[in-house]
Amino acid sequence: MTTTGRQLVSNLTADGKMTLALEEKTFPAPTGNQVLVKMEAAPINPSDLFLMTAGADLENAEYSPGKIEMQLHPQVAAGQASRHGKPQTVGNEGAGTVIAAGDGEMAQALMGQRVACVPGNAFSEYALADAMMCIPLGDHTAEQGASSFVNPMTALGFVETAKREGHDAIIHAAAASNLGQMLNRICQEDDVALVNIVRKDSQAELLRGQGASHVVNSSDDDFEKQLAGAIGETRAFLGFDPIGGGQTTDTCLRAMERVAAAEMTEYSRYGSDQPKKMYIYGRLDLSPTILTPSYGFGWTVSGWLLMPFLASCDMQTLMGLRQRVVSGLTSTFASSYKTRVNLEEMLTKDAIMDYAQMKTGEKYLVTPHD
Amino acid sequence: MTTTGRQLVSNLTADGKMTLALEEKTFPAPTGNQVLVKMEAAPINPSDLFLMTAGADLENAEYSPGKIEMQLHPQVAAGQASRHGKPQTVGNEGAGTVIAAGDGEMAQALMGQRVACVPGNAFSEYALADAMMCIPLGDHTAEQGASSFVNPMTALGFVETAKREGHDAIIHAAAASNLGQMLNRICQEDDVALVNIVRKDSQAELLRGQGASHVVNSSDDDFEKQLAGAIGETRAFLGFDPIGGGQTTDTCLRAMERVAAAEMTEYSRYGSDQPKKMYIYGRLDLSPTILTPSYGFGWTVSGWLLMPFLASCDMQTLMGLRQRVVSGLTSTFASSYKTRVNLEEMLTKDAIMDYAQMKTGEKYLVTPHD
Repeated sequence: MTTTGRQLVSNLTADGKMTLALEEKTFPAPTGNQVLVKMEAAPINPSDLFLMTAGADLENAEYSPGKIEMQLHPQVAAGQASRHGKPQTVGNEGAGTVIAAGDGEMAQALMGQRVACVPGNAFSEYALADAMMCIPLGDHTAEQGASSFVNPMTALGFVETAKREGHDAIIHAAAASNLGQMLNRICQEDDVALVNIVRKDSQAELLRGQGASHVVNSSDDDFEKQLAGAIGETRAFLGFDPIGGGQTTDTCLRAMERVAAAEMTEYSRYGSDQPKKMYIYGRLDLSPTILTPSYGFGWTVSGWLLMPFLASCDMQTLMGLRQRVVSGLTSTFASSYKTRVNLEEMLTKDAIMDYAQMKTGEKYLVTPHD
Repeated sequence: MTTTGRQLVSNLTADGKMTLALEEKTFPAPTGNQVLVKMEAAPINPSDLFLMTAGADLENAEYSPGKIEMQLHPQVAAGQASRHGKPQTVGNEGAGTVIAAGDGEMAQALMGQRVACVPGNAFSEYALADAMMCIPLGDHTAEQGASSFVNPMTALGFVETAKREGHDAIIHAAAASNLGQMLNRICQEDDVALVNIVRKDSQAELLRGQGASHVVNSSDDDFEKQLAGAIGETRAFLGFDPIGGGQTTDTCLRAMERVAAAEMTEYSRYGSDQPKKMYIYGRLDLSPTILTPSYGFGWTVSGWLLMPFLASCDMQTLMGLRQRVVSGLTSTFASSYKTRVNLEEMLTKDAIMDYAQMKTGEKYLVTPHD
C-alpha cells in the first residue's frame, strides 16, 4: 500500500537557478525497521535553511503558489556543484504519528504512536523514518516534540564534548537562541560554567532570567574586556560558535589569550601555553572566518557537527541522551515558536523573508496538514 | 668567573618604538647543568624575525652602527603589549664551543666540546645553555651544526605528528625552504607521501631534483586542480602551513574536500565525512587567516609549535630524534646559507632588508666572533 502526499523539494542547476517547490510524491509502504510518519509539526532550523536558500536574493525571487524560483550568485552555485541537478528534500526533524510500519520489531512497536523523527524530508505530509532514530513522545503534542532531536542533542553534545576534552566551562555565541537557552539550562543542571555571548540587552535579560550567571553583550563598548573577565572567572577555554563567518571565533580566542597572557610570568613570542579551542557548528554568517595572528600557536578551530558526534558515542550514551530529552521535553528541552505555517504558507515571500533571517526567538514551525 | 661579550637585544615601548641593538652583557659562571657556549654560528630563522622586526617599516628605520630604531604601527605595538618595556634577547639556536660548565654531570661532560644549543640569545658572543638541550657535534663545524635544532626537529615533528594521527601522507606549503627540503628527504626515508606546494618553477625543479614525487606550483593557472590531483593520489588530508595569513590553509582544505566530495555517492549539505586538518606553524604572512565556508564541518585548523610538540614526546622518542639529526647533519639535515654576517653586519640596512624578506634559499648565518 502506497501513500501519496506533498513534500518540499529544493533543486539547483549548474547555472544557479534554484527552485523550492511542493511536489506530489508517492511513499512506498515501509519495510524492515522503517515507519511511515504522518508529519504534524517540523521546525525550520538554521541547518535547513542553507539547503533552501543558500543565501539567494529572496527579495527578487519569483513567487507563485507552492513555488519559489531564485537566482544564486554564480560563484555560490559553483561551490555547490555536487548538488546540481540532484533534487533535495528538506526538513531535518519533526514529529507526527506512525501510520504504517515495516515488519521489524522496533518498527511494529511504534505503530500508532506519536514520535519525533529525523527523516530529512520533514517539510512533507508524510515521511519514511528509521525506527531506531524515532523517539516515542508518549502524551506530548507534536509541537512539543517537533524539535526534540537537533537542538537538544546538539546542546547535550556540546557538554559531552567539553567533558571528553577535560573542560568544565564553555563559551557559547548567539547564546539566546532556542539551542542556547537549552544549553543554559543543561549547564546549570550539570554544573558546567557557561559564558553566554549575546548582542542585545533584551537577550541578556532573557538568559539572566533563566538563571545564567555569565552573559556578555557584544554590542557593549567594553565587550572584549567583559568577555575576558568572564573567561577569567570560569576558565572557559573552549567555545562553540554558530555564526562561523566574521570574527566571533577570533574574538573568543583573543579574549582567552588575553586571560592566559595576563598570567604569564615572562613574554613569549609564541603566545601562551594555554590551549584554546573554538568549534564552529553553524554558518549563520556565510562570509569567511577571519583568524588574526593575535593568540600565538596554542589554538584550534574545528567544525562541529551533530551526526559525527552521535556516531562517536556508544549506544549506552546515546540512549541516555535520548531518555534525558524525552523526560525534559516541556522543561529543559522546551522550544518556542514565533508562528506556524503550512507547506504553502512557508513558500510565501513574507514568510521566507522573515524566517530566513534566523532571528533569535523567531523560529517558525511547519504544520504540513493544516 | 664572569664572561663579558655583546649580545643582540630587542626592545619595544608602548608607543611603538622598537630598538634592535648590541649591548655589552656580563654572563655569570654557569651553575648546575648549565654550560657557557662561545657562539660561533647562528641562523636567522623566520621564528627569530618576528621578535626583531614585527613587520616594522625597515626602509624608513634609523640605522647606526650596532643599532636599528624602528617605528611600529600603533595597532601592531598594542598587540604586543605583554612585551612592552621588557628587553628580549634574540636567536633561537646556534652552535659554538663550551668554554665553562656547571658542576652537573651532563654539563661537565660537554666541557670543551662543540655543541648545538637553543639558548634564546644565539645572536650573541656568548650564551648560557641547558646541557640537556645541547647536542654534541663531534667533528662537525659550527656552521654544519648551527641549524641542528629548529628545522630538523620541526620537520621530524611533522612526520611524528602525522603518524600519531594516523596519516601516511602530508601536504607542505612553502615547501622549498630549508625546512621543506629536509622534510622532503625525511618523507622519502620514512616512506611518507609528501605533497610539496611551491610558488616558482625553479623551486619545483629543486625539489624534484631531490627526489620529490609530488610538487605543485601555486603560480600555475590550474594549481587547485593539480593540488587536488596530488591529494587524490596520496590521500594527504593533513597539511602544514608556515604562511598562516591569507588563504593557503583554506586552499588546501578546499582541495581536500574536492577530492572527498568527488567520491561521495550522494550530496550532503554538511560536506564530506572526510576529516581534513591543517596545522599553521608559522606566520610568514602576518595578515589574518581566511577560512571560506566551502568544506563543510569536517575540518580542523590548529597552531603547531615545536616546544609543545617536544614536550609531548617521551624521553626515548626525543633521544631518537636527536640521534637521527646528528647522524644526518651533512645529509638529511644539511642546511645552506646565502651569506654570513657578524653582529654589526646583521644590523645594517642592506642586510636586514634582505633577510627580513625570508626568501626561500636565502638564509643568513650569523658568526658573532668574525
